[in-house]
Amino acid sequence: MASEFTIHRRVEFSETDMAGIMHFSNFYRFMETAEHAFLRSLGFSVVMAMTDPPVGWPRVHCECDFFRPVKFEDVVQVRLKVLKKSTKTITYGFDFALEDTPDQLVARGSIVAACVTRDAESGMMKSIPIPAAFDQAIQVHPDSASPSSSQ
Amino acid sequence: MASEFTIHRRVEFSETDMAGIMHFSNFYRFMETAEHAFLRSLGFSVVMAMTDPPVGWPRVHCECDFFRPVKFEDVVQVRLKVLKKSTKTITYGFDFALEDTPDQLVARGSIVAACVTRDAESGMMKSIPIPAAFDQAIQVHPDSASPSSSQ
Amino acid sequence: MASEFTIHRRVEFSETDMAGIMHFSNFYRFMETAEHAFLRSLGFSVVMAMTDPPVGWPRVHCECDFFRPVKFEDVVQVRLKVLKKSTKTITYGFDFALEDTPDQLVARGSIVAACVTRDAESGMMKSIPIPAAFDQAIQVHPDSASPSSSQ
Amino acid sequence: MASEFTIHRRVEFSETDMAGIMHFSNFYRFMETAEHAFLRSLGFSVVMAMTDPPVGWPRVHCECDFFRPVKFEDVVQVRLKVLKKSTKTITYGFDFALEDTPDQLVARGSIVAACVTRDAESGMMKSIPIPAAFDQAIQVHPDSASPSSSQ
Repeated sequence: MASEFTIHRRVEFSETDMAGIMHFSNFYRFMETAEHAFLRSLGFSVVMAMTDPPVGWPRVHCECDFFRPVKFEDVVQVRLKVLKKSTKTITYGFDFALEDTPDQLVARGSIVAACVTRDAESGMMKSIPIPAAFDQAIQVHPDSASPSSSQ
Repeated sequence: MASEFTIHRRVEFSETDMAGIMHFSNFYRFMETAEHAFLRSLGFSVVMAMTDPPVGWPRVHCECDFFRPVKFEDVVQVRLKVLKKSTKTITYGFDFALEDTPDQLVARGSIVAACVTRDAESGMMKSIPIPAAFDQAIQVHPDSASPSSSQ
Repeated sequence: MASEFTIHRRVEFSETDMAGIMHFSNFYRFMETAEHAFLRSLGFSVVMAMTDPPVGWPRVHCECDFFRPVKFEDVVQVRLKVLKKSTKTITYGFDFALEDTPDQLVARGSIVAACVTRDAESGMMKSIPIPAAFDQAIQVHPDSASPSSSQ
Repeated sequence: MASEFTIHRRVEFSETDMAGIMHFSNFYRFMETAEHAFLRSLGFSVVMAMTDPPVGWPRVHCECDFFRPVKFEDVVQVRLKVLKKSTKTITYGFDFALEDTPDQLVARGSIVAACVTRDAESGMMKSIPIPAAFDQAIQVHPDSASPSSSQ
């Protein structure tokens, strides 16, 4: 069982923009990278064909607050916490900081991912309850467990 | 004076992912593209050196709700509306739909952009009140003007 | 039958880098976008499931020479010409210029795309001869037909 | 003095495309990431303002041959070798392989980077001879030194 995971990722040149900082769209990519690393650490993959049952986790909501710019070659620490679970969705929170100053947040975001599978008849994705294997492995972070702090 | 703007953008192959749909990070890029086209339509550029006074508009918050997938070669309509103005920020809302079914939203997002300039002494960005030229040209959309709908 | 195609694409903010110009990796994306628009203009799609027979066109080689920088909001004209056809590959050439100065090249590149289909038994991609429908619709550009200019 | 450098980079979900493999444009980004890591290992940065003299290294040519697809979560090994130096340019070669099968190339590419500085009068980039500090630190790889193998 796990409720948090941390990755580090160095900002690449192609991720900067003409303002001289990392383009904001990459924060969303980094969140997803942390989410996938978290699932991988539990023995899961986000690739549908590789899980049993074959499920996927499309985003239904994703947001980010930006506090400070991140620059080329900065090593960004992304700390994932499981904020909330519902029957069919998981909400992840992400705290971004530079590796050298982990207590000073540069951004904070969240993803709500819905559990889906492919409908055999229509071939379309349909929302399903989170399978037991995922539900048992992924738990809400203690910091997020009180009613007032859940989102 | 303007409060809305619409662009169309065809989904490129490099913007898809292995789930067979447009990667969600591109919705944030498309929002920004609509924002910049809106500013350009008013005679402004987001490039700091090209405006007088030289201001920039970094994002302080950006979020998106995803309702339906968008696929390769789909032409996406992005409709920007000015949702709110404060002394130092502008909040834009974005309704995403496919060109052929403009009334069926595929996603809805928003950006809060802060007006900044470069501090002469420190070289750092600092938040400033929106200059009169921008404030006069950009107005809150009538749909967003009632207290209950503002965010 | 067709041997050339031209698209225009405005450089987006997220495509710039901290050097203040469009990141070079986007030239490769723009080449592919022109290739796909060319195929679409002929009634084809690069999406395997949508063609009959179901073929794909992965790149086996792609290169680009860069002459001048391209900047944010520049409208780039990408002119595709079919440089060469072999039994199993098509070579496309791409001339990049700014819309306002179409005779002054900013970059020139090429893609060699191989025709593939999915092997029924192994599920792997395998190279196949270009189907007649494609071969008849796509012809080598007259400028490229002489032995000395082919590559 | 150094003539080679190796990095590893895991393929992220946002770098895949609907063909289920890493989009080819990312190979060019990975080459650049290896080049920058090589320069950083020598105490240099590609960020102009951080070097003395302040130089930049824009690409004048970049190409890649693709042999096998790379998939989501694959760890790609990128091995850089200095293939050639001229007065004003450096040519880097890049061998791509999966971490677990380093002897089986999945792609091979090269970048020709030109040394430039900003002209004080015009503000434009201009090509200059490679400064001594770079020239002394970066040497052509022995494998590339024979006349027949240089490109």
